[in-house]
Amino acid sequence: MSWEDNVKRVVPYVPGEQPKSKVIKLNTNENPYPPSPKVREVLSNYDIDELRLYPDVNAGELGMALAKYYGLNSNQVFVGVGSDDVLAIAFMTFFNSDKEILFPDITYSFYDVWADLYKIPYRMVELNDDFRINIEDYLVPNGGIVIPNPNAPTGVEKDVRELEKIVAKNPDSVVIIDEAYVDFGATSMLPLINKYDNLLIVQTYSKSRSMAGARIGMAFGNEKLIKYMNDVKFSINSYTMNRLTVAAGTAALEDEEYFKETCDKVIATRERTKVRLRELGFDMPDSKSNFVFATHESIPASDIFNAAKSAGIYLRWWNKDRISNRLRISIGTDEEMDALFAFLKEYIEARG
Amino acid sequence: MSWEDNVKRVVPYVPGEQPKSKVIKLNTNENPYPPSPKVREVLSNYDIDELRLYPDVNAGELGMALAKYYGLNSNQVFVGVGSDDVLAIAFMTFFNSDKEILFPDITYSFYDVWADLYKIPYRMVELNDDFRINIEDYLVPNGGIVIPNPNAPTGVEKDVRELEKIVAKNPDSVVIIDEAYVDFGATSMLPLINKYDNLLIVQTYSKSRSMAGARIGMAFGNEKLIKYMNDVKFSINSYTMNRLTVAAGTAALEDEEYFKETCDKVIATRERTKVRLRELGFDMPDSKSNFVFATHESIPASDIFNAAKSAGIYLRWWNKDRISNRLRISIGTDEEMDALFAFLKEYIEARG
Repeated sequence: MSWEDNVKRVVPYVPGEQPKSKVIKLNTNENPYPPSPKVREVLSNYDIDELRLYPDVNAGELGMALAKYYGLNSNQVFVGVGSDDVLAIAFMTFFNSDKEILFPDITYSFYDVWADLYKIPYRMVELNDDFRINIEDYLVPNGGIVIPNPNAPTGVEKDVRELEKIVAKNPDSVVIIDEAYVDFGATSMLPLINKYDNLLIVQTYSKSRSMAGARIGMAFGNEKLIKYMNDVKFSINSYTMNRLTVAAGTAALEDEEYFKETCDKVIATRERTKVRLRELGFDMPDSKSNFVFATHESIPASDIFNAAKSAGIYLRWWNKDRISNRLRISIGTDEEMDALFAFLKEYIEARG
Repeated sequence: MSWEDNVKRVVPYVPGEQPKSKVIKLNTNENPYPPSPKVREVLSNYDIDELRLYPDVNAGELGMALAKYYGLNSNQVFVGVGSDDVLAIAFMTFFNSDKEILFPDITYSFYDVWADLYKIPYRMVELNDDFRINIEDYLVPNGGIVIPNPNAPTGVEKDVRELEKIVAKNPDSVVIIDEAYVDFGATSMLPLINKYDNLLIVQTYSKSRSMAGARIGMAFGNEKLIKYMNDVKFSINSYTMNRLTVAAGTAALEDEEYFKETCDKVIATRERTKVRLRELGFDMPDSKSNFVFATHESIPASDIFNAAKSAGIYLRWWNKDRISNRLRISIGTDEEMDALFAFLKEYIEARG
């Protein structure tokens, strides 16, 4: 007998590498452009005396700014330490049924980690061979549903009118739509939160707002959903959103022009990337996110992954069933993508 | 049947009020002095381009700076979003026995909230009438032990040689010593983590380092304890410590002189406060923290609490068994305390 007998043993999520040296980093879907200059401004002028005080429990001005930005009431907004925090709390709050929760078999690999951690029964629903969701699969008894749209790591967007059927036909389950990548040209289901009280939309500053390092995620839903999540949050840690992040996140929202401009740049580079990769012998589903999910006609993904890494270009590859011959390639700047294309061209030619 | 049937229902922790208007705030044990000027410096010069990247999963430079500061290896340090985050993860990680965990009946009121949330059986062990811990009470079969030293809201310090007995005699339980207030003149048990593999020390930037608004807490223990906590953390949210906070927290550690100076000022004001409050008819146990836990010889605590609030001075009062006639008064600046004494003098005289 030892204290180690009572330790919670888990298999944690493994995030993409954060290399210390200078590399071309296309492995964790970060935005290649810096945050809005308004963020620099607010940090330079920040009154550090405020740091001695606890922050507002509801992320104060950030929660209100988000509500205003999205045309919601502030009691329809939940703010957390990145969308991982928001999703983990949503899983804990809403998924307490004996029935299985449902999510795609190829998707964000944190969902099953949270389900295991919180002892939530779950079933991974197979996507079809084009990585598409079959709506009918989700119209069965369940304890909750999680669907990322666009999905990751595939980048595939499902039509929101189709997804709405899942929400409408499951009034007894909370349906979470994880819209981490929605700002890169996909359609948000946010307007539907006033129609369905079981719909929770999750978004993040980490991708489209270039602030992965600030850790801001948010959920939008009817006020009952948000209240239940806050109750659980206040049972774990009352004050999660630090004052610096609240100030920086609020400032970023004020700069809509910059936001649109950087999203448009990422989208333009993504479209160019699709064309160029196809020329190089890659195939991929049509992505609406800031990454593509590519497979080469002749060279195994793992070979390309390793060779690229040796050349200082980090991509993401999973040694997992159904996707082991795919690479997830984040969209960088045009210059970074050109460097990738040049490497690929040379590497593919050398392999003959 | 509705989705609400499967919602996790909890009774959340209720933090002290954060008033929006200008008041004398002696209700949440914040430090009255601003953080080190080094924090301003690092934020003014912060390269916001970095914010587009995910932070280091182990709080990188902050974890290393803490290890260096306390003379530890970095694998003996865990960093979280305030000590509430650290404690919540420790509860989840280590308290999975069928036996009850033990903590004092009068203590930080988050412990039972976490135990309820994670379905951990617990027993609150009665302090004696002087709010002192009886060591023998903790030498019984248990699933874990949590002891704040100094305790809150009493401010009472237990001799670390006494507490060491609890750690030594419970090798099969993790013993958490919550040292949130240790820097105000109490003795840390940190040196003992190399002697006992079941000892976890938890500290925070929120009190002595004037950074409650930055949300930094830390745990120190042998590398096995820290690894288990990280495994659980990585199953919830890989990236909890944002880059701004990491930079600010690291900078604060570099300014030892400022840290000592502000702690000494708080201690001096606390000692003056004890004398002055006793002159005004209050009694309190000897506090080694940045607050005192006072009861008046004739006027009920709730009356003083309400009258002070009306006068713009926020104190903390709990309508709870054994402590309902006590006020927890945080130590502010000398000027703030003088305003409190002036109010109390007038109020007590008026009550005749």
